[in-house]
Amino acid sequence: MIAHLVSTGDEVLLGDVVDTNSAFLSNALAMLGIRVRKTTTVGDDADVIARILVETARQADICIVTGGLGPTRDDLTASACAKAAQKKLVLNMTAQKSMAAYFQKRGFELTKENKKQALLPETASVLVNISGTAPGFFIRIDQCLFFFLPGVPGEMRTMFKNVVVPELKRRFCLNEPVRIERLTVFGLPESKVGRLLEGFEALFPGLRLGFRADFPVIEVKIVSVQEAGKDNKKAVCMDKAKTWVIRHLEGKVVSETGLSMAQEVGRLLTVQNKTVAVAESCTGGLISSQLTDVSGSSEYFLFSGVTYANDAKVNILGVEKESLLKYGAVHELTAGQMASGARKKAGADIAVSTTGIAGPGGGTKEKPVGMVCIGIATRTFSSARTYFFPQRDRLMNKQMFAATALNLLRRHLIEGAPAKAP
Amino acid sequence: MIAHLVSTGDEVLLGDVVDTNSAFLSNALAMLGIRVRKTTTVGDDADVIARILVETARQADICIVTGGLGPTRDDLTASACAKAAQKKLVLNMTAQKSMAAYFQKRGFELTKENKKQALLPETASVLVNISGTAPGFFIRIDQCLFFFLPGVPGEMRTMFKNVVVPELKRRFCLNEPVRIERLTVFGLPESKVGRLLEGFEALFPGLRLGFRADFPVIEVKIVSVQEAGKDNKKAVCMDKAKTWVIRHLEGKVVSETGLSMAQEVGRLLTVQNKTVAVAESCTGGLISSQLTDVSGSSEYFLFSGVTYANDAKVNILGVEKESLLKYGAVHELTAGQMASGARKKAGADIAVSTTGIAGPGGGTKEKPVGMVCIGIATRTFSSARTYFFPQRDRLMNKQMFAATALNLLRRHLIEGAPAKAP
Repeated sequence: MIAHLVSTGDEVLLGDVVDTNSAFLSNALAMLGIRVRKTTTVGDDADVIARILVETARQADICIVTGGLGPTRDDLTASACAKAAQKKLVLNMTAQKSMAAYFQKRGFELTKENKKQALLPETASVLVNISGTAPGFFIRIDQCLFFFLPGVPGEMRTMFKNVVVPELKRRFCLNEPVRIERLTVFGLPESKVGRLLEGFEALFPGLRLGFRADFPVIEVKIVSVQEAGKDNKKAVCMDKAKTWVIRHLEGKVVSETGLSMAQEVGRLLTVQNKTVAVAESCTGGLISSQLTDVSGSSEYFLFSGVTYANDAKVNILGVEKESLLKYGAVHELTAGQMASGARKKAGADIAVSTTGIAGPGGGTKEKPVGMVCIGIATRTFSSARTYFFPQRDRLMNKQMFAATALNLLRRHLIEGAPAKAP
Repeated sequence: MIAHLVSTGDEVLLGDVVDTNSAFLSNALAMLGIRVRKTTTVGDDADVIARILVETARQADICIVTGGLGPTRDDLTASACAKAAQKKLVLNMTAQKSMAAYFQKRGFELTKENKKQALLPETASVLVNISGTAPGFFIRIDQCLFFFLPGVPGEMRTMFKNVVVPELKRRFCLNEPVRIERLTVFGLPESKVGRLLEGFEALFPGLRLGFRADFPVIEVKIVSVQEAGKDNKKAVCMDKAKTWVIRHLEGKVVSETGLSMAQEVGRLLTVQNKTVAVAESCTGGLISSQLTDVSGSSEYFLFSGVTYANDAKVNILGVEKESLLKYGAVHELTAGQMASGARKKAGADIAVSTTGIAGPGGGTKEKPVGMVCIGIATRTFSSARTYFFPQRDRLMNKQMFAATALNLLRRHLIEGAPAKAP
């Protein structure tokens, strides 16, 4: 089965908006065993859109078109579709009713512009939008089944999951769920991850690797590929493949279930019934923000002191003024005292701290941009280590420092011993 | 002039990677007055790539192709191009030399796989890659000029700016710089921003509006469009247009120069020579992290106390235990005391605080998910306000709370009076 995607909209074509819809749809279709062969983006031009639909009708079995279903005059997808299908645009009562209901619930009235949205090609079937005003629809042109969805990512995703997936499953008998395993990797560049896993496809036919870099972490996916319409019953040994991947990634797998670094740390804290505090200088609150992105984190996260100013390090975390003046803020001694101070202040079981140079300014020969000291303190133990990262921009340095600190915390929670370099 | 983009690569097509290259290139070409008409993504399949190149050669004047220039067997773009151009693949000495130099500088030797990268269609001209190994190239097929660039965003961008832009300017006489103005808007949904600015294009022909939503903030761009090759000397009144846009956005323009909320707050603090402290509960460090994303923020940002636990609010920020127990953590009284406490602890001129329910758990009828109390304290004044936002997910709530707090701080810095609702 050949699938194409078409994104419409000047804002996508002109680069004002990054097209995340295509990535989402490609991924979601892959999970159904449907492989996208081509993705096209065109602007708000009815003739161009119609031409692409006609071409696609000849080349693909299914096509998902996003965007251009709104109320303004830029929204031309329905009329382009009518042109491509050589059908009239007619008022679709189901579409109008569902829009009226959506508006009524929110205390608004349908405007003339909104009514335009209910004009659909005469043979189209409506896809109800529960999270917005634009109704979607599907229609067959030649041998290709076209689904037209709104361009707003939230509305598109909801409509795809709730309406398109069941429709595709019903029509194409896609019942086989595709298994997917996710691993979170930290401490290797993406190119090296790819190199370490070379040979995978030959060893495990029927499985496919996918990579998603979310700096500085990489998600490795193992997907069991089952092409729809083909009787593809290869004996797929996912567990063996997963073990092989973990072994080849040289101990850099942070989570074997695809958790983020902060989620994995949270999981370990919960399992061990421990609480955590943080002291941040160069990461500026990023570690705390990542930890508290995890829902339920209030169970273990107590406090973070973001002490940018030296006075704050002394007055709030209890760092010794003398050693701070003597050795400077970016020093293992300071990092250790920050972690101990935050832990004591909060009454936490364990604490982690960062102090370093995020740049672009503030670096010296001895303490360059990219240098960070990370401290760990428990009730019985405290230590600190220094890391040097190749110079990146300020935001990347903050990300790298935060991930390194959380990884050190993670390792300490697992090993319980003096933390070693990751 | 008609421009097309072609992205290649299974990882893009299958949605493992979001295609940010196309958005970058569309935007960068628009800045040169070149409008992209179509963007296509195809997988690592030499036949499919070759077919797209042949089609494009008939439809476009220039085309930029990204990806597939690497050393592995998935990298098929050069051979697809040779096929489309009906030319032989030959060893390009310039390409090989530049690769050898790149490797030598880093102490590596060229491998057999790398040497493959220097095999280019015989009429191609090399584009040197200073930030990676894959050489780019350009070649004419029919009437269309094709540029082939690496898929790695950093390498692609560097090569585009350093080599492709000068080449395009030279060949197409693109000397006119296009002016662009950016405005940062907070407190309006994207659809409303569009509605408020309806009529812009009729009033200001030759100017174009662009929108980029970066939740919860929207960037509005005013671009003066000058199409390449056309003698387009419309009297463009950018300043008048900018004033018109600001007036129509109902006071929701946060920065008239496109600064982020945190950058604008930092600018005001710097101008007024003031220091700031933060006390965060529900935002969990996000406000501090955003403030410290701005380089030079150490000049004005002193301290943030991320006090998730009630004990931390009492022990570190000095919130009164009695009122905390009586009214709860999510209360204006607590927010006010948190802001005052953080300000005093840090010796800052001004402080902002947040305490609320980010969800998904923890909401009640009186204090639902999406509720946040925000406090502001100066040396002479303290106040707090409560906001209710329609329920979103945890991360969006954190973003909305942080932006609202920074906006309140911004307004207080401008108005100096008791802060009002944004």
